[in-house]
Amino acid sequence: MRIGVLCSGGDAPGMNACLRSVVRAATSDGHEVIGIRRGYQGLIDEDFFAGGADSGCMSARSVSHILERGGTVLHSSRCQAFTTPQGLQTAAAALRRNGIDALIPIGGDGTFRGAVALGKVWSGQIIGCPATIDNDLVGTDLTIGFATAVATAVDCIDKLRDTAESHERMFLVEVMGRNSGHLALATALAGSAEIACVPEVNVDADSIAKHVRELRSLGKQSIIIVVAEGDEQGGAVALNQKLAQAGCPYGTRTVILGHVQRGGSPSPPDRILATRLGDFAVRSLAAGATGMMAGDSAGRCRLVTLAETFATHKPLPEHEVELLERMSC
Amino acid sequence: MRIGVLCSGGDAPGMNACLRSVVRAATSDGHEVIGIRRGYQGLIDEDFFAGGADSGCMSARSVSHILERGGTVLHSSRCQAFTTPQGLQTAAAALRRNGIDALIPIGGDGTFRGAVALGKVWSGQIIGCPATIDNDLVGTDLTIGFATAVATAVDCIDKLRDTAESHERMFLVEVMGRNSGHLALATALAGSAEIACVPEVNVDADSIAKHVRELRSLGKQSIIIVVAEGDEQGGAVALNQKLAQAGCPYGTRTVILGHVQRGGSPSPPDRILATRLGDFAVRSLAAGATGMMAGDSAGRCRLVTLAETFATHKPLPEHEVELLERMSC
Amino acid sequence: MRIGVLCSGGDAPGMNACLRSVVRAATSDGHEVIGIRRGYQGLIDEDFFAGGADSGCMSARSVSHILERGGTVLHSSRCQAFTTPQGLQTAAAALRRNGIDALIPIGGDGTFRGAVALGKVWSGQIIGCPATIDNDLVGTDLTIGFATAVATAVDCIDKLRDTAESHERMFLVEVMGRNSGHLALATALAGSAEIACVPEVNVDADSIAKHVRELRSLGKQSIIIVVAEGDEQGGAVALNQKLAQAGCPYGTRTVILGHVQRGGSPSPPDRILATRLGDFAVRSLAAGATGMMAGDSAGRCRLVTLAETFATHKPLPEHEVELLERMSC
Amino acid sequence: MRIGVLCSGGDAPGMNACLRSVVRAATSDGHEVIGIRRGYQGLIDEDFFAGGADSGCMSARSVSHILERGGTVLHSSRCQAFTTPQGLQTAAAALRRNGIDALIPIGGDGTFRGAVALGKVWSGQIIGCPATIDNDLVGTDLTIGFATAVATAVDCIDKLRDTAESHERMFLVEVMGRNSGHLALATALAGSAEIACVPEVNVDADSIAKHVRELRSLGKQSIIIVVAEGDEQGGAVALNQKLAQAGCPYGTRTVILGHVQRGGSPSPPDRILATRLGDFAVRSLAAGATGMMAGDSAGRCRLVTLAETFATHKPLPEHEVELLERMSC
Repeated sequence: MRIGVLCSGGDAPGMNACLRSVVRAATSDGHEVIGIRRGYQGLIDEDFFAGGADSGCMSARSVSHILERGGTVLHSSRCQAFTTPQGLQTAAAALRRNGIDALIPIGGDGTFRGAVALGKVWSGQIIGCPATIDNDLVGTDLTIGFATAVATAVDCIDKLRDTAESHERMFLVEVMGRNSGHLALATALAGSAEIACVPEVNVDADSIAKHVRELRSLGKQSIIIVVAEGDEQGGAVALNQKLAQAGCPYGTRTVILGHVQRGGSPSPPDRILATRLGDFAVRSLAAGATGMMAGDSAGRCRLVTLAETFATHKPLPEHEVELLERMSC
Repeated sequence: MRIGVLCSGGDAPGMNACLRSVVRAATSDGHEVIGIRRGYQGLIDEDFFAGGADSGCMSARSVSHILERGGTVLHSSRCQAFTTPQGLQTAAAALRRNGIDALIPIGGDGTFRGAVALGKVWSGQIIGCPATIDNDLVGTDLTIGFATAVATAVDCIDKLRDTAESHERMFLVEVMGRNSGHLALATALAGSAEIACVPEVNVDADSIAKHVRELRSLGKQSIIIVVAEGDEQGGAVALNQKLAQAGCPYGTRTVILGHVQRGGSPSPPDRILATRLGDFAVRSLAAGATGMMAGDSAGRCRLVTLAETFATHKPLPEHEVELLERMSC
Repeated sequence: MRIGVLCSGGDAPGMNACLRSVVRAATSDGHEVIGIRRGYQGLIDEDFFAGGADSGCMSARSVSHILERGGTVLHSSRCQAFTTPQGLQTAAAALRRNGIDALIPIGGDGTFRGAVALGKVWSGQIIGCPATIDNDLVGTDLTIGFATAVATAVDCIDKLRDTAESHERMFLVEVMGRNSGHLALATALAGSAEIACVPEVNVDADSIAKHVRELRSLGKQSIIIVVAEGDEQGGAVALNQKLAQAGCPYGTRTVILGHVQRGGSPSPPDRILATRLGDFAVRSLAAGATGMMAGDSAGRCRLVTLAETFATHKPLPEHEVELLERMSC
Repeated sequence: MRIGVLCSGGDAPGMNACLRSVVRAATSDGHEVIGIRRGYQGLIDEDFFAGGADSGCMSARSVSHILERGGTVLHSSRCQAFTTPQGLQTAAAALRRNGIDALIPIGGDGTFRGAVALGKVWSGQIIGCPATIDNDLVGTDLTIGFATAVATAVDCIDKLRDTAESHERMFLVEVMGRNSGHLALATALAGSAEIACVPEVNVDADSIAKHVRELRSLGKQSIIIVVAEGDEQGGAVALNQKLAQAGCPYGTRTVILGHVQRGGSPSPPDRILATRLGDFAVRSLAAGATGMMAGDSAGRCRLVTLAETFATHKPLPEHEVELLERMSC
C-alpha cells in the first residue's frame, strides 16, 4: 500500500509526532509513505517531501528527532482551491498519478470537511488524524495539540498571577479555541482562574461583575478571568470595558495570548496521543477502513466517521464547569 | 462534618492542588477542614496546620496559590509508628479528641495500607486520594503526580538526546517507579526512546544487545534506553555493564534521574486530576462512603475499595509496549 | 540600623530575590529590617509586612523560599500621593515614627524619582536597587528582571517560529520596554529574529518592507520582526498595516506579548544579580552612602547617584544592532 | 578566505548558535565556510558537512533554525589521534588539500590544546571560540554553555527543594565542572542552596556537619548542598557518607545531575554570547589574528592567546563565595 500523508489547516503541537508515527508504523508493516507538503495545496501542486535517499518515499530515518518539535516539517496551509470541484478533481488526479492508495490527513474540522469532499471524487481510502488545539472534534476525547496549548496558556497564567498578586489586580486573559470553550475551561481549571467565559455558557457582564465583587469581599487579592475568543461577550478587551461600566473593584489588564498557543514542543500527553493515533490510522487502513477519523475514547483507539466529527458542537464536560465555580471560593 | 486531611509517603506533584480542592470543596459545602501536618506522624503528634485567622481550621484563603506548587505545604513523612497497634490507637484517639468525623489521606499504597489499618480501630469515614508518581494503584487510570513525573523525565531525555546525537552515543536513563514500569514506559514513548526495560517484561541482556546492534545497522546515530528502577536487570548501571559484555556498538553513558522526578510545579493534567479527585472525595464523604479511594476511570470519577488499590499489580497498557517497539525502527 | 525596604512601580522578576538578600545581609550584620507593603503607598499608610514571630521586623526565615518566585511578596503599587509635597511629608513622618534609619527602594525610574524627592524631606539614608524589565537605567549594565523578561519573550518567539515556518508566514511580535529598545533588541538577537524595530533607530516602513522582500529572495521561509512598544512606528499592529500597504511578500500575524513578560520565576542571572545588589545595598548603607543606586558594571558592584540613573537615555549596545543585521542574511 | 569550523570535546549548549554566527558572519563578508564533522577526528577523516545545494560550503540557509537547538549539528568527538604527531600531520594535510585558510575550533581546553599543537605544523590562521559548560577558560568572563548548564541545574534544584521541604530533608546535589567550581557556585547561589563544596575551597567534612547543625538550629527545614564533581570530598555520595558519620541532623538523599546539564536549548545569554563570539572570531581572522581565543570581558569582545586560556586555573569570584555564606543564614 502507498500512503499519502499531509498536515492541513492551523498547525498544532504533535503534528510531527503523528507524522513520525504514520511513517514508522507504515514502514514497519511494509507500506510506502509519500509526504505531501503544504496540505491540500501541496497535493494539488504535487509538492512532495523528499525524505528518502533515492526516492520520494519517506524512510523511518527521515522522521528522526521530529517527535519533540512543534509545527510540522511537512508545512501546512489553508487551501481555497480545495473547496472547488476543480481543485478536488486536480487533487484526485494527483493521487492517482502518483499511485497513492490511501490518504492520512492530519488536521481539524476544515481538514476533515475537505477529506469528505475528496472522498466523493476519489476512490482511495481516507483516515484522518485529529490535530487542533481547539479540541472541538466529536468522536475523540482529546485532539492532538490541545494538551500542549493548555500547558502553554497555563504557563502564561502562572506568570500573570505573579503580577496580579503583586499589584492586587484583575487580568482578563483571552485564549484561542474559535467557537469552542474547551481550551478556556481547561486553562481556567489548571490555572486556578476564578472565572471562565465560554461560548457554551451565556452570562451577562453584570452578573460577572457581581461575581467579581463577591470574590473581592471574600478577600481575593487578585482575579484571573479566562475568556474564550469565541465567547459571546466579544473577547477580553470588550468584556473588560463592560466590566468597567458595571463596576469592577480591581484595576484590570487584558492579555491576548494569540499564536503562542499553537507552537512549542508537544507535551508528553500529546506526544503519546499523536503516536497512538498515527499508528492506529495506518492499521485501520490495512484493515480496510475509510472515511473515518482515528480517535481516542477512554484510553482506547476507535474510529468514527469523518462527517460525525464536525456535525455537532462538542459539549463541554459539565462537571468541570461546576468544579471551577466550587474552586473559586 | 469535620474533615481531616493529610499527605503521606513520598511527595508527588499535585498534592497541593488536591489539598486546595479538598479545602475549597469542603468549605463550599459547609464542612470544616483540619490540616494534619507530616502525614500519619503528625496525626499521632496532633501537629495541625494553622490555616485560619482564629482557629485550627483551614480557610479557603489558606490554600490560595498553592495549586501550582510542587511538594506539599502540609509536609509528608513515612511513619513507622503507624504500622504498630499502639500507633494506630494513638492516631484514632487523636481523631476522636479533635472531633474529626472523616479523613482524606493523600498518598500511595503505603498510605492506603495505613488507612485500611486505621479503619479497623476508628469508626470515622475514610476516602483516599491517589497521589504517587509511580501510577501503581489499581482503580484509577492515572495517579496524581504521574503526568508531571513523565514530563520531567521526558524533558531530561530531550536534553540527553542533544548530547547523544552530537557524540553518537547510547544513554541508559534510570527512572523511578519502584516495582512498576508505568513511568518508564510512558517516558520512553514520549521521549522517543528506542527501548524501555520494565519489571513487567523480562528480556535478557543478550537480546537487548542484539536489538541495539540491529538499530545501529538501521543507521541510528544515538540510542536512548529507559530503565525502570525496579527492572529485573538491576537498574541502568548494572544493565550498562551487561550490555558492554554482550557487545554494544555505541559508547555509552548512564544517568539516574532520581528525586528530580518528584518535584516541580504540577503539569495541567495533574492539576485538573487532583482538583477533580479532591472535590470528589469530599462529595463522597458527604454521600456516606468510606474505606474507598477516589479514582478516575475513562474521564469519570469512581470509588474503589482501598484494599483493592494495592492488592494486585497494575498491568501496563500492553498496546503501548508494542507501540514503542513499532516506533523504534 | 533599622532599614526599611519596599518594592515600587511595575513588578519585575527578581524583586523577591533582592528582598531576600536585603533581609539576610542585614540580619547577618545585626541590622533590623522593616518590610513596607505596596510601595510608597504602603509607606504613607504604614502598612508593614508582619514577618517575624513577635515583631514587625523581617527575620531571615521570613524570606525563605521566595528567591525563586516571581512578583513580590511585599506587593507593589504606583502611588500618586507620593508625587505631592503632602504625600512626601506623610511618608517622611512615617519613617521617623517607626525609627527607620535607612530605606532601600527596589524598582525603576519612577521609584528612584520618588526616592530623590523623599531625600529632600527626610534625612535618612537611601540606596535604591534597580528592578525593571526595561533595562532603561543608566549606571548598571543590567537591571533586575531584564534577563527573565528576555527569556520569556524568547520562549514565546521559539514557539511562534514553529507556526511561522509551518505556514511560511511573518510574525510581528510586540514586546515591552516603554521608550527603550533594550528588551526588543536582546529578544531579537536571542530569538533569531530577522529585524528589531526600536525607538533608538528610526527606519521608515518602506525600508522595512524592502528589507523583508530581500530576505524573501534569499529563501527565508518565515520572518520574525520584534517591535518595541515604544518604537516610532506605533507598535506591531500599526507597523503591520504599513507593511501591508508597502507590499510585504508574506502572510502576517501580530502578537502582543504583554504582561506575561513581567512574571515568572527569575532566571539564574537575575537571581544572582538581585542577590548581589541587595547585599551591596546593605553594605553601602553601613558604609554611610546615600542617594545612590546599587548597580553592576562589568561584573562589579558600584554606586551611582539616583539622579543620574534616569537623567539620560541609556543607549543600546551599538555593536548588537549591527550584529543582528549581519545575522539575518 | 576559506574558513573551516568544527566542534570538539564535550558538547555545550550554544555550539550551534556559535556555528550559525560563524557561517552568517563569514558569508556576509564574502568568505567560504567548510563545516567539519565530528571535531578533529572528522578533520583527519575529511568528513565534511554537506550544507550547500551544490558544494561542500555551508550557506547562510544551512544554519537556519539551529540557534535554538542544543548539541551540535556538526557532531563532536574526543580524538586520540590528534594528540600524536602523525594525527596532526594528517590534519594539516587535509586542511591544505581542501584549501582551508583558517580554522575556528569551538570547544574547551582540550580543543584549544589541540589547536595550539596544530598551529605548530600548519601555517593557517586559528581563532578558537570557548564553549564548555565548565566555565574554566581564562580570558573570558563566561564560556558558551555555562549559563544554560547553570539554568538546568537550578531548575533541578528548584524541583528538589519541593521534596526537601515536604520531607524536611537534606539533599546533596552533584554538578559537573571537572576540576572547577564555577558551575557549583553559580548553581548554589541561584538555587538558594545553603552550601557549595568546590575544589577551590578546602573544608573538612566535620566543619560542614557543624555548619549543617547550626543551620538546623536556625530553624531551616531543608538543606541543599551543591557538590562540584571535582571537589576534594570526592563527590556527593562520598560526602554524604562522611556527613552521616560526623552527625548530620537531617535525613539525606543524593542526586547526581549528570549529562542532563550538557543538553537543552541554550538560554538567551548563551545564544547572545555565542553569536557575538562567532562573529568576532570571523572578524578577527579577517584582521589577521591567529593563535587566539575570542573571549568576552566586561561585555566587550577581546582576544587572548590560546595558550593562556588553559595555562592557569580560572579563579572563582571570591565575593560570591562570601555572598553564598551570608545568604544561608
